[in-house]
Amino acid sequence: MKTNGLVVMLTDFGEQDFYVGAMKGVIYKTFPQAKIESISHSVSKFNLRETAFTLFNSAKEFSKGTTFLVVVDPGVGTQRKEIVLQTENNLNFVAPDNGVLTLVAQEFGTKKIFEILSKRLGKSLSSTFHGRDIFAPVSAKISKGEKLDFLRKISRMKTLKIQKAKVRNGKIYGEILSIDSFGNCITNIPNNLLKNDFGRVLLTQIVDKKFSFKFSKTYGNSKKGDSLNLISSSDFLEFATNQGNFAKEFGIEIGMKVRVN
Amino acid sequence: MKTNGLVVMLTDFGEQDFYVGAMKGVIYKTFPQAKIESISHSVSKFNLRETAFTLFNSAKEFSKGTTFLVVVDPGVGTQRKEIVLQTENNLNFVAPDNGVLTLVAQEFGTKKIFEILSKRLGKSLSSTFHGRDIFAPVSAKISKGEKLDFLRKISRMKTLKIQKAKVRNGKIYGEILSIDSFGNCITNIPNNLLKNDFGRVLLTQIVDKKFSFKFSKTYGNSKKGDSLNLISSSDFLEFATNQGNFAKEFGIEIGMKVRVN
Amino acid sequence: MKTNGLVVMLTDFGEQDFYVGAMKGVIYKTFPQAKIESISHSVSKFNLRETAFTLFNSAKEFSKGTTFLVVVDPGVGTQRKEIVLQTENNLNFVAPDNGVLTLVAQEFGTKKIFEILSKRLGKSLSSTFHGRDIFAPVSAKISKGEKLDFLRKISRMKTLKIQKAKVRNGKIYGEILSIDSFGNCITNIPNNLLKNDFGRVLLTQIVDKKFSFKFSKTYGNSKKGDSLNLISSSDFLEFATNQGNFAKEFGIEIGMKVRVN
Repeated sequence: MKTNGLVVMLTDFGEQDFYVGAMKGVIYKTFPQAKIESISHSVSKFNLRETAFTLFNSAKEFSKGTTFLVVVDPGVGTQRKEIVLQTENNLNFVAPDNGVLTLVAQEFGTKKIFEILSKRLGKSLSSTFHGRDIFAPVSAKISKGEKLDFLRKISRMKTLKIQKAKVRNGKIYGEILSIDSFGNCITNIPNNLLKNDFGRVLLTQIVDKKFSFKFSKTYGNSKKGDSLNLISSSDFLEFATNQGNFAKEFGIEIGMKVRVN
Repeated sequence: MKTNGLVVMLTDFGEQDFYVGAMKGVIYKTFPQAKIESISHSVSKFNLRETAFTLFNSAKEFSKGTTFLVVVDPGVGTQRKEIVLQTENNLNFVAPDNGVLTLVAQEFGTKKIFEILSKRLGKSLSSTFHGRDIFAPVSAKISKGEKLDFLRKISRMKTLKIQKAKVRNGKIYGEILSIDSFGNCITNIPNNLLKNDFGRVLLTQIVDKKFSFKFSKTYGNSKKGDSLNLISSSDFLEFATNQGNFAKEFGIEIGMKVRVN
Repeated sequence: MKTNGLVVMLTDFGEQDFYVGAMKGVIYKTFPQAKIESISHSVSKFNLRETAFTLFNSAKEFSKGTTFLVVVDPGVGTQRKEIVLQTENNLNFVAPDNGVLTLVAQEFGTKKIFEILSKRLGKSLSSTFHGRDIFAPVSAKISKGEKLDFLRKISRMKTLKIQKAKVRNGKIYGEILSIDSFGNCITNIPNNLLKNDFGRVLLTQIVDKKFSFKFSKTYGNSKKGDSLNLISSSDFLEFATNQGNFAKEFGIEIGMKVRVN
C-alpha cells in the first residue's frame, strides 16, 4: 500500500480520557517517524452516519498514501470484522466493519478490502479497546510500510444505507444530514438539483415547519440574524442563520425530512 | 518571508466537524513537510476581540518564521479582504481582514501587509469555507517558502478599537477583557498601573458589585475558595477564586466595566 | 536522560484559552525539532487523582525516551516543588510535586527524582503560569538532550493515597476510580480478584444501590441499553451500559463505594 507516513485519527472517544493518548503511544511505538494528526475525537458517540460524512469531507483533501484510523465502534467485542480499505485514489482506511467507510468507498472507489487477522498481531487483546489493541498498531504498520501478513483480502464490507434526495413532481425530497457546531443544517440535497439559481426565494419545509428564505451564494448578502439557504462547503443545500444558530432557533435535528417546493 | 515550516492554527470551528481536518489535509497536500499545530479551535464563535487576545498571548512565545493561520470569520463571503501580515519580529499571519490581527500588529510592529489575490490560487472557491480554500493553502505556501505571486502589498488593515484602561482622579477605569476556562476574569488594566503593590487590599468594582480582595502575587497566600486579585500571566489585573470559578460565582461577563478605587 | 524527541502534554487548561498554545510556542522555541503531542487538556480541573490515572494509562503505551509534561497544578505559586521523575522504563515526567506522578512511579518504578531549580532557567517567572515559564522549557530541554544543570537530585516526591480494593469475608470492597466520556464507571477492583469468571451474574452495590449484572467479557453478549459488568481496558472492574451512559442513568460519581458480594 502507498504510504506518506501520515496517520489521521477520527474517533468518538472525546478529549478527556486516556484513550486517544494511549492510541498515539501505540502508533509512535510501532512507527516512531509517524506524523499523527486528528480530524476529530468528538463526533457524536456511536454515530456511524456522522462519522462517514465527517471522514469523507476531510479525507478528500489529503494526499495519497495517507492512512486514516477511524474508531467509532458500537459493536466492539462482537463478531464484526476489523477491516482495511484501500481506495482508488490511494488513501488507506483502518476501521471496524460497520459502515463508517461507506462514503469514502462510494466517492473515491474501492480498490481493495482486507480483513484484519488480529491474532496474527501477536499481542494480547482487550475486549473493549480495539482502538489501542488492533486499529492503532495496524494503522502504524501500514503507514510505516511494513509487510502486511495479517491482512486477508475480502470482497465486501458493510455499508450504511445513505438516503439520496429524490425529485418527484418538481419537488425535491431529502433530509437533514448533519448539523455543525455553528448550528448550520446541511441536507442531502446536492447543489446540482438546485441549478445555482441564486437570488430567488426558496420555499422549503422541514417536517411541518415552512420557510421562505433567500437562496444566497454567500452570507455577504444577508444581515446578522437573517436566516438563509446556501450551498454548503460540502456542496449540499444548507439552512443557516448569519452569525446565529439555525438548528437551535428552529429545533432542527439530524434525520428530519426536508422538502423544497 | 522567513519560514520555519511551522503552521499554527487558531479558529472558532470547534472540534467536532470536518472543517479542521479538511484544512489540515490542504496544508499537508500543499506542503507535506509542514508541522501543523493548533492554539485552539474553540474560541467563542465570531468573537474577534477574544481571538485577537488569544492569538497575541500565544504568538509571542513562538520563534520567527512561524506562520499563523487564523480563521474567525463572521464576514466570509462578503467583500472583506483576505490578508497576510508580516510583523517586525518575523512572524507571519494569514487571516480575514476583520481586526483579529490588531494586537499582534500593535505589539510586534507591522513590517508588511499583503492582500491575497485569491483568484490567482487557481482553484475553485466555495463561498462559505475560505479556511479550506484560501487561508490554508496560502499558509502552507508561505510556510513552504514558495513564490508568493498571489500577494499584493497594501498599506492598511482593519483594526479593532481595543479600549485601554484610563486613570482619572486616582481611580483606574477599565473592563473585563477575557474570562478563561477556570473562570478567572482578566481585565485590560496593566500591571504597571498597579505598581506591584502586593499585600494591600484593593477596593474594586465590577459594574455595581463592590469588592475588597487582597492583591496577591500568587495563589499561595490564599486558601481554597478565597477570591483575590492577581496579575495574570498576560500581565493584567485579574480577579480569581483559588480553585473556584470567579466568573460563575459573581456573574461576571466579558465587557463589564471595572474600577479600582 | 534518554530522549526520543517526543514531548507529550497533559493539562487541565481546556481547549479554548491561550495557555496550551503558549506552552507549545515555548517548547518549539527551545527545541525546534520537538514532536509535540497531547494526551488531553480536559482532565477535570485540579483533579490530581484523575490526572494520575489518565497519565499512567496513556504513558504505558509510549516508548522509552518520551518526555511527559503534566500541568494540573492547584498549588501554583505556593511552596510546592517542581520536579522531574525518571522511571525505570526510561520515561521522563515533568510536573508539579503534588502527587500526579504517583501511579507512574508506582507502576513503572522510580529511577531518579529531581527538583527543578527554576531560578537557573534564567527567565523571569510569572506567579501563576508555571506551565509556560517552567514546565514547558524544562520538558523541551530534556527532550532536546541539553545539559540539565538546573536539576538537583532529591530522594522523595509527594504521593497520593490511592485506595486499593480489599477482600474481607469473601466480599470485595472498592470504589469508583474514574468515569469516562461514555459514562463507563471504572472501579479500583483489579481483574485478578474476579478470576475471569465471565458469564455469571455479579451481585454488586454502589453506595446503597444494588445491582445484578452479567459479568461479560465483551459488549458483544449484550443488547443495546443493557447494563453489564466488564473488565475495562485498564484492567479493572467496570460498570457500563451498552451504547448508553451508565453514570448518568444511575447517578454514579467518582469516589463512590463499590462492593462485590
